[in-house]
Amino acid sequence: MVKGLFISFEGGEGSGKSSLIENLAQFLAEEKISFLKTREPGGTALGEKVRQLLLHESAMSPYTELAFFLASRAEHVDKILLPALSEGKIVLCDRFNDTTLAYQGAARNLEMDRVKKLCAFFAQNLQPDTTFYLDIDPKLGLKRASHKGSDRLEKEALFFHETVRTAYLELVKNERERFFLIDATLSKEKVFALALAHLRQKHAF
Amino acid sequence: MVKGLFISFEGGEGSGKSSLIENLAQFLAEEKISFLKTREPGGTALGEKVRQLLLHESAMSPYTELAFFLASRAEHVDKILLPALSEGKIVLCDRFNDTTLAYQGAARNLEMDRVKKLCAFFAQNLQPDTTFYLDIDPKLGLKRASHKGSDRLEKEALFFHETVRTAYLELVKNERERFFLIDATLSKEKVFALALAHLRQKHAF
Repeated sequence: MVKGLFISFEGGEGSGKSSLIENLAQFLAEEKISFLKTREPGGTALGEKVRQLLLHESAMSPYTELAFFLASRAEHVDKILLPALSEGKIVLCDRFNDTTLAYQGAARNLEMDRVKKLCAFFAQNLQPDTTFYLDIDPKLGLKRASHKGSDRLEKEALFFHETVRTAYLELVKNERERFFLIDATLSKEKVFALALAHLRQKHAF
Repeated sequence: MVKGLFISFEGGEGSGKSSLIENLAQFLAEEKISFLKTREPGGTALGEKVRQLLLHESAMSPYTELAFFLASRAEHVDKILLPALSEGKIVLCDRFNDTTLAYQGAARNLEMDRVKKLCAFFAQNLQPDTTFYLDIDPKLGLKRASHKGSDRLEKEALFFHETVRTAYLELVKNERERFFLIDATLSKEKVFALALAHLRQKHAF
């Protein structure tokens, strides 16, 4: 039933996901390829409400936070991602299950394996075909992100972001078929060129 | 660590949970026994926001709905129930995990066993010491509830509510130690008297 191509983008704060997604979206638009650009948490009207709760409410329990991310994911998958993919669209999704694994599973210490199962369930087993992981040292990433103003999650201590990075690198190591790691200290143009070359080679577009 | 007594109340629409809880709360107040009266979904500021989303947003996916209930549960357990119980309070909680099992697990067809595991995880394995299940034929219960005005969940078809009741009865059958079933067609006074007698006998208060 799923005919489209599902591409997710992962990385810590200041890793340049937004620029890469913007560049790919522009490329697809110019090529007149049907695509959808979306993000998590959010991506639906309900999900955007959850996003606001998540980014601005303070002191919620880690279990609560996880459940909210899963609610946003569930709605996004059911209402946006699965329909777009079944129409054959290319979906560019800013953050997906791997974010939950790295941030809630690893950094919040809720057990990676259990969180992986939760993600699979609430995402109706949808998995990205390709995931770009933009890797950057959190010290540098946070510095790059700081000029944008920072929300609750970005204010976490450096140690938290280092745990997130370690978790991402572990995920990449375990699923080399799906992940494509890009050094996020490269220029935006170079990052885009590497991503596009990978997509052309792997998915022939 | 948990020293208090955790009592939950379950039942379909119009089963008279609120009246029973009110009567028990009044009794405890008169006896000067320290207690907390709370409810799900809700029970925290964040949970009340979720409650509003749940009761009034339409057409959300069953997975989303489940995740929202779990978010509300997680916050309620972590911030309200565990602290109150560790202070030795008697907690009167209008709906808890069994609601999720009956409504989301059984009636929404998301697999009881899986939903049971999800509930245990997000509730940090907290279980009621006693659960009163107020049993009523949905045809009668919905009629009794209808004068109160009805929210989204109450508007579900009769078949849905019959599935909920069957699920509750199954839960009661499987956990006779924890559950105490009361015929909700009895008078409010009789329902209260039966509940109080059970608590006096089981928990000696």
